[in-house]
Amino acid sequence: MPVVEDVYPSRVSDRPQLARRVDPVVYPGAPASRLSKEDAALYEKDGFLFVERLFQPEEVQRLNQELRRLTSSEQVRAREECITEPGSDVVRSIFRVHEFSDVFDWLSRDKRLLDTARQILGSEVYVHQSRVNLKPGFSGKEFYWHSDFETWHMEDGMPRMRALSVSIALTENHAFNGPLMVIPGSHKTYVACVGQTPENHYKQSLKKQEYGVPDHESLRRLTDQGGIVAPTGPAGSVVFFDCNTMHGSNSNITPYPRSNVFFVYNSVENSLQEPFCGLRPRPEHIAARGRFAPLQPLDRG
Amino acid sequence: MPVVEDVYPSRVSDRPQLARRVDPVVYPGAPASRLSKEDAALYEKDGFLFVERLFQPEEVQRLNQELRRLTSSEQVRAREECITEPGSDVVRSIFRVHEFSDVFDWLSRDKRLLDTARQILGSEVYVHQSRVNLKPGFSGKEFYWHSDFETWHMEDGMPRMRALSVSIALTENHAFNGPLMVIPGSHKTYVACVGQTPENHYKQSLKKQEYGVPDHESLRRLTDQGGIVAPTGPAGSVVFFDCNTMHGSNSNITPYPRSNVFFVYNSVENSLQEPFCGLRPRPEHIAARGRFAPLQPLDRG
Repeated sequence: MPVVEDVYPSRVSDRPQLARRVDPVVYPGAPASRLSKEDAALYEKDGFLFVERLFQPEEVQRLNQELRRLTSSEQVRAREECITEPGSDVVRSIFRVHEFSDVFDWLSRDKRLLDTARQILGSEVYVHQSRVNLKPGFSGKEFYWHSDFETWHMEDGMPRMRALSVSIALTENHAFNGPLMVIPGSHKTYVACVGQTPENHYKQSLKKQEYGVPDHESLRRLTDQGGIVAPTGPAGSVVFFDCNTMHGSNSNITPYPRSNVFFVYNSVENSLQEPFCGLRPRPEHIAARGRFAPLQPLDRG
Repeated sequence: MPVVEDVYPSRVSDRPQLARRVDPVVYPGAPASRLSKEDAALYEKDGFLFVERLFQPEEVQRLNQELRRLTSSEQVRAREECITEPGSDVVRSIFRVHEFSDVFDWLSRDKRLLDTARQILGSEVYVHQSRVNLKPGFSGKEFYWHSDFETWHMEDGMPRMRALSVSIALTENHAFNGPLMVIPGSHKTYVACVGQTPENHYKQSLKKQEYGVPDHESLRRLTDQGGIVAPTGPAGSVVFFDCNTMHGSNSNITPYPRSNVFFVYNSVENSLQEPFCGLRPRPEHIAARGRFAPLQPLDRG
């Protein structure tokens, strides 16, 4: 059982509960300053920040090339990090890409991402999780609403809200090809979910979320307050979002695939404890465990 | 077997085929003139026309009231016209509503709808099919791409493309709550689907389309040419679309339900023959059979 206090209990009651976030969103003491004051304030208020065309078309092309190499490699497809769509062998996600792809390793240390993460989290950071998500055309499935933090806290033992995700669009995000949807302001409320977590739940949950699922009433309250935003834009656009921002996405029947790279940056001062749900930790490719050295910026010079 | 020539064969080959439409889109000889020349030309070109706020908030309120009455009536829920979501008892669609609800009967004969249909189809018309679709919040399922005409032709024996649908939004259509998506210009191409139609297929297909499904390559060609449009707007907005316009919708995980009323108007000169797939006709509530008297406009005076 965890040795630190659980300030965000969940899955212990048979009724959902809404609690106020007790952690900062933008931490003081930033070792880097990449965002403008206005953008940092926007992130603090909304729990996300959309930056159009942060990466250039040539960079996106290179990332897509690497993605094609990975998804067509039998070796990669055989890895446990590779998750297929329910009922087919189409690749849905590949985890821990930054560890077996130089291109994605470099991307995770690109200053445009890394310095933003360091600024918001007010400390050095490391990669807690990385993955590519491929939402194929015609058959991309929905991801139901969730706060990443609820899962990371309960199932991985992340103590506090001091992590963020960045999603880099590798294809154009239209309104209609299942874009990421976020509920602005939802990061300031912690939705404690009902029920218990079963063992080895993660294998299923990566395909279709069934535990740690927020209830309808809580979601209605969050959207009544903040609405829903689905940032759209060309490939190379980026969304930074807080670990507790409620998000999800609809299905994609259009011919246009939606591919994104995700990096989760966690503060080195927020490294994982034992899972707060009392079960064994999920595997390393879902949640990097142990103490990590600060991630070093990529020196392109 | 049908006595009239089958100018739109489908489900006979093991390879999909694209054919040119041989029928007009906007027929001459209109007995009514409701649309402007520009709007009629737009409909001819795109295969659909979006009219924002065609119905007033008070009218929408009345329709929603009636919808609530219908979905909560045990008598209605027990009818074969009432279709539930896969794996639940939530009402997804109610067919033939204009025949057992005065309010929806009146709506089907409202001049704003009826005169537009008469103008486009160049003749008197009747209601081939009516239904309400409820795409509930949180769990609304997707409808895969389809041309209504392909199904109506093959399974119901509609001889020619001389019918249109109108969808009246009873809730706000956002970009993210699974709005109707159409492929502009797709109505001018007939996508012949592969495979055979099994008996009693309709019971399944109303929940999840599995036959008469256009192939990926054909869909890609249509979207390469026309893109995708998902008209959004407040409740009371209306989309008129041609019977052969390729359309579909994504899932809806948002808390916002999406409810629409559909009327399909068919020309009285295009009444149903034997199904072109050679099987028995589907039931009356899916496709009204026999010769119909011209639908009479509602006299509100």
